[in-house]
Amino acid sequence: MQADYHLLKKYVASVFTAIGCSDEEAALASDVLVSADARGIDSHGVARLAGYVRLYDNGRLNTKPQVKVLHETPSTATLDGDRGLGLIVAPKAMEIACEKAALAGTGWVAVQNSNHFGIAGYHAMKALPSQMIGWAMTHAAPLVTPTFSKEKLLGTNPIAVAIPANEEPAFVADFASTAVAYGKLEILQRKGLDTPDGWVQDANGDPSNDAFAIKNGGALLPLGGDREHGSHKGYGLGAIVDILSGVLSGANFGPWVPPFATAGFMQAGETVGNGTGHFLGAMRVDAFRPAEDFTKDMDKWIRRFRSAKAVEGKQVLIPGDPERELEAIRRVEGIPLLKPVVEDLQSLASRFQLDFKLD
Amino acid sequence: MQADYHLLKKYVASVFTAIGCSDEEAALASDVLVSADARGIDSHGVARLAGYVRLYDNGRLNTKPQVKVLHETPSTATLDGDRGLGLIVAPKAMEIACEKAALAGTGWVAVQNSNHFGIAGYHAMKALPSQMIGWAMTHAAPLVTPTFSKEKLLGTNPIAVAIPANEEPAFVADFASTAVAYGKLEILQRKGLDTPDGWVQDANGDPSNDAFAIKNGGALLPLGGDREHGSHKGYGLGAIVDILSGVLSGANFGPWVPPFATAGFMQAGETVGNGTGHFLGAMRVDAFRPAEDFTKDMDKWIRRFRSAKAVEGKQVLIPGDPERELEAIRRVEGIPLLKPVVEDLQSLASRFQLDFKLD
Repeated sequence: MQADYHLLKKYVASVFTAIGCSDEEAALASDVLVSADARGIDSHGVARLAGYVRLYDNGRLNTKPQVKVLHETPSTATLDGDRGLGLIVAPKAMEIACEKAALAGTGWVAVQNSNHFGIAGYHAMKALPSQMIGWAMTHAAPLVTPTFSKEKLLGTNPIAVAIPANEEPAFVADFASTAVAYGKLEILQRKGLDTPDGWVQDANGDPSNDAFAIKNGGALLPLGGDREHGSHKGYGLGAIVDILSGVLSGANFGPWVPPFATAGFMQAGETVGNGTGHFLGAMRVDAFRPAEDFTKDMDKWIRRFRSAKAVEGKQVLIPGDPERELEAIRRVEGIPLLKPVVEDLQSLASRFQLDFKLD
Repeated sequence: MQADYHLLKKYVASVFTAIGCSDEEAALASDVLVSADARGIDSHGVARLAGYVRLYDNGRLNTKPQVKVLHETPSTATLDGDRGLGLIVAPKAMEIACEKAALAGTGWVAVQNSNHFGIAGYHAMKALPSQMIGWAMTHAAPLVTPTFSKEKLLGTNPIAVAIPANEEPAFVADFASTAVAYGKLEILQRKGLDTPDGWVQDANGDPSNDAFAIKNGGALLPLGGDREHGSHKGYGLGAIVDILSGVLSGANFGPWVPPFATAGFMQAGETVGNGTGHFLGAMRVDAFRPAEDFTKDMDKWIRRFRSAKAVEGKQVLIPGDPERELEAIRRVEGIPLLKPVVEDLQSLASRFQLDFKLD
């Protein structure tokens, strides 16, 4: 079905209210989640709503969190997310990062004891209206092998950087540190197709084209694929995201990062920190150069790259272009939802006795 | 030949002194350069010494730079490198980043009007003794195409992040944002071999296996190789490095970044900023958590990853392991130099009438 953008946001918020969020926080969580769908990152949008509710059912989600600052300096803070929705905790962290940046030039906030925060790009973009460069990263449960490893030790660990321009729309890079997102495997699974080389390996660590490789003990490969194509760089990038999000914040890290929404907690003894972590940052552009000089040069950068001679039938894109263009369309024309997602949403409506009208 | 580590450093310093550097700055520049050879990144070591001298000959290098702070806040600074050696300017920038971090928690320094700074890892590692996480990035002249582009608009744009541990050696990731370094193509060129898929494209933007592709109008590919394997992520990473090093500092950027050491300046009208740029940062670990808690967790991280079950005949490496191990050997056993490099060094000795004794 094609869901109306505003009705979908309203419905999703009503589910968050039903599990105990305040109206204000439910609206924010819904905004983060539905923005993923609007921007075409459907795997991180309302398809996950039932997962957040499962986290709640399993006692891993506190819908009335008291987010606490554990430690701070003029340009840093560490937050305890109090087992809150990452969708709520990360915007709070970003707000603090921007406040720090306003005074100290930059602000960097490590978060522990949180949960899945949606798409990284949403949070990084929150810095843009203040003429700041926004950073957002998070780790996730292990699906990815370091180069030469048979064991999965890293999540898909995304990083987003949003950079303001003047007349041009902002530069917004938002990418996982793997060759592909897990969602791309699911598409091939449904179609019964093999993967290209360099996406996955099997349980022995050998190259594989099996779209079900992960279910059979295999793993996603870091960006680069194999050593010959620079997988140690993708591994390094995923590791940096894990260390900043997990070790620096005092959350879990590496293979100990808790899964998004499988049943129950991890067993005692397998925990090395406090919940899931994130790392967010804001850099005031005019802490380096007059903001107008910078944003005008960004226009020049963006225009030069966008107008580059392209290969036949293609166009050189600026990071963030496709998502922004899709968002403009979907906000007006609606958001396409797959049948199983609609059914999931519908069953939450039954359970919580909510109005369910999306179009 | 096998050059003695200390004699090589002394000789390289004597060349920098001969072109006008102070004894102190010549020793520092030599330390940065020879550390690249010691760590096995031979392409960025003494093989480039003649190139730095060519920069000097062409009036692009000021060997008596007055590095100036153009702008600063508690956690940031922008430096004018006064056309100095990047090998000198970047350590100065890193020193300021660490001073800022000592007071404000983090310190971030953008540099304009500099030159090639050697290996990024050297500069990032300077934060380690102060229990700080070090960041270093730089851009370079265009060799790399954005995804779908025929035109080369980005350099190999490396990023390094150095993270202290407790009993374990530090984590030091230092990698270009391309699938491979240009040096790997040169090795294949000498052997008359083709490249694997995903390293280069030809002048039409089609996939190529020609080790001479760049000389024939082709380009290096971003990390990921092609769109199907995530090249838009490598492109995004290279772009972030370019924007922080170039646009944020007020240096040139994108296709306008000046080449390392070809003859003369770029022509007037092709300049959009001031020389080459870098971006360096330092984050005090105890601005987030007690340093000992952090470094002990880093030990745990490192040990877990290093002991991961590996594919047959391999071992999972921690970023920085191979370079550190090689450095320990080469400092004692000497540094292997190729014949053309020795000849280059020898001709500098003749020109400047220097003692030339390396073993």
